[in-house]
Amino acid sequence: MSEFIPPLEVLIEQFNRLPGIGRKSAQRLAFSIVESSEEDVVKFAESLVNAKRNIHYCPVCFNFSEQGECDICRSSTRDRSVICVVEDVKVLLAIERARGNTKYNGLYHVLHGAISPIDGIGPEQLKIKELLERLNDDSIREIIIATNPTVEGEATAMYLSKLLKPIGIKITRLAYGLPAGGDLEYTDDVTINYALEGRREM
Amino acid sequence: MSEFIPPLEVLIEQFNRLPGIGRKSAQRLAFSIVESSEEDVVKFAESLVNAKRNIHYCPVCFNFSEQGECDICRSSTRDRSVICVVEDVKVLLAIERARGNTKYNGLYHVLHGAISPIDGIGPEQLKIKELLERLNDDSIREIIIATNPTVEGEATAMYLSKLLKPIGIKITRLAYGLPAGGDLEYTDDVTINYALEGRREM
Repeated sequence: MSEFIPPLEVLIEQFNRLPGIGRKSAQRLAFSIVESSEEDVVKFAESLVNAKRNIHYCPVCFNFSEQGECDICRSSTRDRSVICVVEDVKVLLAIERARGNTKYNGLYHVLHGAISPIDGIGPEQLKIKELLERLNDDSIREIIIATNPTVEGEATAMYLSKLLKPIGIKITRLAYGLPAGGDLEYTDDVTINYALEGRREM
Repeated sequence: MSEFIPPLEVLIEQFNRLPGIGRKSAQRLAFSIVESSEEDVVKFAESLVNAKRNIHYCPVCFNFSEQGECDICRSSTRDRSVICVVEDVKVLLAIERARGNTKYNGLYHVLHGAISPIDGIGPEQLKIKELLERLNDDSIREIIIATNPTVEGEATAMYLSKLLKPIGIKITRLAYGLPAGGDLEYTDDVTINYALEGRREM
């Protein structure tokens, strides 16, 4: 299999391990590294190790943070009575990006995954215990569950809602329906049914 | 623009500089790094620097080599009377991979590019001088020009053929025509014309 000299083969294998990078792309990337200047390659290598070593998780919401609590948890302008629960930091960032168009100004809680028995991920692998601890604070009025509209996300939302309802806090879920700019002709059945169920009077 | 904490933003920018990796893919890759173990990230970083530091160019043919001449130039079973001229190491490897089905057993010469005035690449930026030096060796009978079937590859082939013909060595060019498994209905005009021009009696 190894048609490449060892240092190149090793690098290709490393690129190949990244998500979404196949063998062919890994080769292309490895070649580009060999053809870059040593200075650039060292800079890239350092940025990898730096990111890994200097990015920690916020001890409150588990967002990325360089040190201690994250910027959102530390912010004095945030509404501390609402927590939006998301599967991962990517979703948190997507909601933050959309903030220009929305009114969401609350806090977050990153679960770092979703319940998925097939992958052996149960509630105990997620940051759910930590979420419950945050609810000891009486100031929290509402939990918005913003897990993904997937089987795993649904399962997680159900689990959380059952777990949190008895505490007596308002639990909400993001609306399901047609995506903006979507075309009904090409919308899947599940989404159409969601849109029908969730229809609102005009 | 920077919605990420600095070490993450730096890493995203670094990934974004790789060929074929857009901003969105770069984010995905950077996140996967943060979520990997420190051990794995350090291994990846080392393989980058290692590849860059330990892969050199063969002083004869400019293929990749760990030390001194490359395996092909050093091989005692290779036909040293034929040199196949290619644009880059990727093409050399593609021809080597095809060797199971072909009879090519000669040497190579990697130009490291093709003539492209738009990009400011002239013959002097390519390893053409070095190719001429190799031809001082009387044992070379044939030069196979295997530049890509692109404008730049064609220009390079033309230039080389004009340069090398006076030396009196046989100069050949890879055949143009229909690719194996291709469908004439979807073949471009240029290829169809090449295939017609190059038709052979059955």
